[in-house]
Amino acid sequence: MSAFSNGDIFVGETLGTAALILLGGGVCAAVTLKKSKAFNAGWLAITFGWGFAVLIAAYMSAPKSGAHLNPAVTIALAVESGDWSKVPLYIGSQLFGAIIGATLVWVTYLGQFQANEDPTLGIFSTGPEIRNPIQNLLTEIIGTMVLCLGILTQGLNKGLGLSGTGILIVALTVVGIGLSLGGPTGYAINPARDLGPRIVHSLLPIPNKGGSDWSYAWIPVAGPLIGGLLAGGLYNLVF
Amino acid sequence: MSAFSNGDIFVGETLGTAALILLGGGVCAAVTLKKSKAFNAGWLAITFGWGFAVLIAAYMSAPKSGAHLNPAVTIALAVESGDWSKVPLYIGSQLFGAIIGATLVWVTYLGQFQANEDPTLGIFSTGPEIRNPIQNLLTEIIGTMVLCLGILTQGLNKGLGLSGTGILIVALTVVGIGLSLGGPTGYAINPARDLGPRIVHSLLPIPNKGGSDWSYAWIPVAGPLIGGLLAGGLYNLVF
Amino acid sequence: MSAFSNGDIFVGETLGTAALILLGGGVCAAVTLKKSKAFNAGWLAITFGWGFAVLIAAYMSAPKSGAHLNPAVTIALAVESGDWSKVPLYIGSQLFGAIIGATLVWVTYLGQFQANEDPTLGIFSTGPEIRNPIQNLLTEIIGTMVLCLGILTQGLNKGLGLSGTGILIVALTVVGIGLSLGGPTGYAINPARDLGPRIVHSLLPIPNKGGSDWSYAWIPVAGPLIGGLLAGGLYNLVF
Amino acid sequence: MSAFSNGDIFVGETLGTAALILLGGGVCAAVTLKKSKAFNAGWLAITFGWGFAVLIAAYMSAPKSGAHLNPAVTIALAVESGDWSKVPLYIGSQLFGAIIGATLVWVTYLGQFQANEDPTLGIFSTGPEIRNPIQNLLTEIIGTMVLCLGILTQGLNKGLGLSGTGILIVALTVVGIGLSLGGPTGYAINPARDLGPRIVHSLLPIPNKGGSDWSYAWIPVAGPLIGGLLAGGLYNLVF
Repeated sequence: MSAFSNGDIFVGETLGTAALILLGGGVCAAVTLKKSKAFNAGWLAITFGWGFAVLIAAYMSAPKSGAHLNPAVTIALAVESGDWSKVPLYIGSQLFGAIIGATLVWVTYLGQFQANEDPTLGIFSTGPEIRNPIQNLLTEIIGTMVLCLGILTQGLNKGLGLSGTGILIVALTVVGIGLSLGGPTGYAINPARDLGPRIVHSLLPIPNKGGSDWSYAWIPVAGPLIGGLLAGGLYNLVF
Repeated sequence: MSAFSNGDIFVGETLGTAALILLGGGVCAAVTLKKSKAFNAGWLAITFGWGFAVLIAAYMSAPKSGAHLNPAVTIALAVESGDWSKVPLYIGSQLFGAIIGATLVWVTYLGQFQANEDPTLGIFSTGPEIRNPIQNLLTEIIGTMVLCLGILTQGLNKGLGLSGTGILIVALTVVGIGLSLGGPTGYAINPARDLGPRIVHSLLPIPNKGGSDWSYAWIPVAGPLIGGLLAGGLYNLVF
Repeated sequence: MSAFSNGDIFVGETLGTAALILLGGGVCAAVTLKKSKAFNAGWLAITFGWGFAVLIAAYMSAPKSGAHLNPAVTIALAVESGDWSKVPLYIGSQLFGAIIGATLVWVTYLGQFQANEDPTLGIFSTGPEIRNPIQNLLTEIIGTMVLCLGILTQGLNKGLGLSGTGILIVALTVVGIGLSLGGPTGYAINPARDLGPRIVHSLLPIPNKGGSDWSYAWIPVAGPLIGGLLAGGLYNLVF
Repeated sequence: MSAFSNGDIFVGETLGTAALILLGGGVCAAVTLKKSKAFNAGWLAITFGWGFAVLIAAYMSAPKSGAHLNPAVTIALAVESGDWSKVPLYIGSQLFGAIIGATLVWVTYLGQFQANEDPTLGIFSTGPEIRNPIQNLLTEIIGTMVLCLGILTQGLNKGLGLSGTGILIVALTVVGIGLSLGGPTGYAINPARDLGPRIVHSLLPIPNKGGSDWSYAWIPVAGPLIGGLLAGGLYNLVF
């Protein structure tokens, strides 16, 4: 898990997660905000947008840090390898990168945000269609388990497959999870992806931005972390 | 066909087919159920969703069992290789996995199902647009022949191509079959994919779930099995 | 161009072009016919459907015949290599395969065709949005030149790239040509793809099928053949 | 950066950028013009169309010139390598190719343009949804930085990855940038892609074509050039 130096992990995960959230939040902004060429482009645009966000971000960070970009993935790999020493550094860098990325979404769509008239939390963070903590948690756990089992079985992050088409397969895996499991909660499946942008949303001076829904915020953190733990355990059991 | 141990075949096919049906049934739930972010996302979302379901599931099961995930594929490979000894184990594991996967769809979309008001069979199993046994059977046979000939000619499941991009090509093949041949019957092209979820649908306590249409159930079983047989035979004849 | 035996060329091109037209015509049927799950799925579905049709068909025929599947590609490769000896066999097999494939579209969508109430030529063959022979010819020449230059520069059909991802790149090239250059004429870019199904359309007993528009039929034959010639010549000049 | 001869650079960049603009402008024409089969096909069609335009064009030009196809990419690579000697030749050839490509869009859609009744600049060049020079410039800088950092980290244009799937990854990167960052300005992210077609638009005899908006023209030139400079610098700093 950690042939990478601490400095490289910090740079790779920060840069990569910033790119991930810039592009992932960006597609949500593009489809949601009214003065945007992609307005109303639909769910397929959002799911492909997030998938290609992973593609671009993972190629940027793979040579530096192995492209975790997600605390749940870091946890799953720690369970699998038994090495937890770098986990705090990875997760801290991911959260920092996510905060930068969400801020860059705001810069990219600055004019649109300044003219904003509707709630904007959906551009930054996830929320449930039907609010029920246990159900929403289950959905996030299942989605994250598919992601982490996918990455583990695809041989990524173990020195194999970080070049070539390995990252492409992970990116399309994320498209698939969005299409299939994203309906109820908007598929956070990544605590940094949800918490970092929620912090940014609560701080930014966007007119009519609406609330940051902190009462829901623990679910897209806890669900993916549990999912990562379970996926790592199941992988060790089976493979 | 069977360099894999019986235990590995059971684990690989069960886990893989469960993932396939979780993700494939999931995209049908996502697009069909009203309180879903993907509601009405359209046929392209469904066909890409099923394709990426194959992608994810096949990478999970390939190192364990060769990623058949489909009795029709198992039959086609048995015809091609002449070795039928593992066929019952493969098919039984696939059906068991499909039942698990369909149950996980229900767990993932639990809130949506509890608030359900419309027939839900289409989330679990296939049905014809125009009901005519001979025509529907022909459509399923043709779709499955394209799938199995595709897999055989792409060199999959023979020790070649199970890593790298081979599985990606099969996944996109499934997207293509859905787009081109899925119109009349919803492309079961896999007996386990249809029968397992239909059993689950008949048992689950979903309000207003509607009937399980058992009178149609034999077609998405028989059609793909015949298609697999014919594809294996044609492959041996031509290649 | 011809390390393949005559028998293999016949089998490969017939089988491959039949699969191409079954899947390509199939997606047109799926999106056009009313009692189809893909009804009104849109232009993106059609262009991806044709691209994945190429993917599946080319993997089937590549080991037998090099997967030309298109008289314009055969011509471009003949110009490039200077070897015209196998051209008639390739083109004859492609036309024969296209006729089989178009018939299989009819079998797959039999119920839908029997209940048909609208003109169906668009499922089988191409037609212009604005009818003007010179303009339509130019559009088909340009589209085919992009296809053939793409294939030639991607190193396909010269013993390189017929396995691995080479065919995937060609398939996505076809999606791109459809999206970008398909608007005016429906991108035949392949004489066999248009003429074979047009013959089948004129013969099939489909109620209310409408005319077969033979006055336009020469354009999607001549345009692609000229495009293939020009692409081969340009390739030899530049590369 | 320059193992290629001057003649090859000229031919490769001219041919490649012409193909890029023919296909990229083509998809805008296909979706915008009324008498087109792709009319109203939506933002996803446009972003995939531009991505596959890059795919096709880059395979054509890679063996000749390394497939820059974009002055911002040329600048980023010059900053990274420190070799600026070929920059004017690359940029000049790209602009020349873009002019040819935009003219070919007009030829391909000639009938549609002759019947045109609406402003057509959007088919040729980009424009902002909300007009604000600083904001629009920032959006173009950010989009181009993602593109150039993506290409640099993906190892392209340094002798690695110009065959195989490297170009596919860049093409999907461009789809992702379009989906995520294209909303405010239409993602020029390439000075030649915007300036060349704008010149052609101002000269072509299209009825009701509307103005060429020269007051905006400097932004999609300056923004991408600044983005390429910054990306090259950041890459050297980090990697």
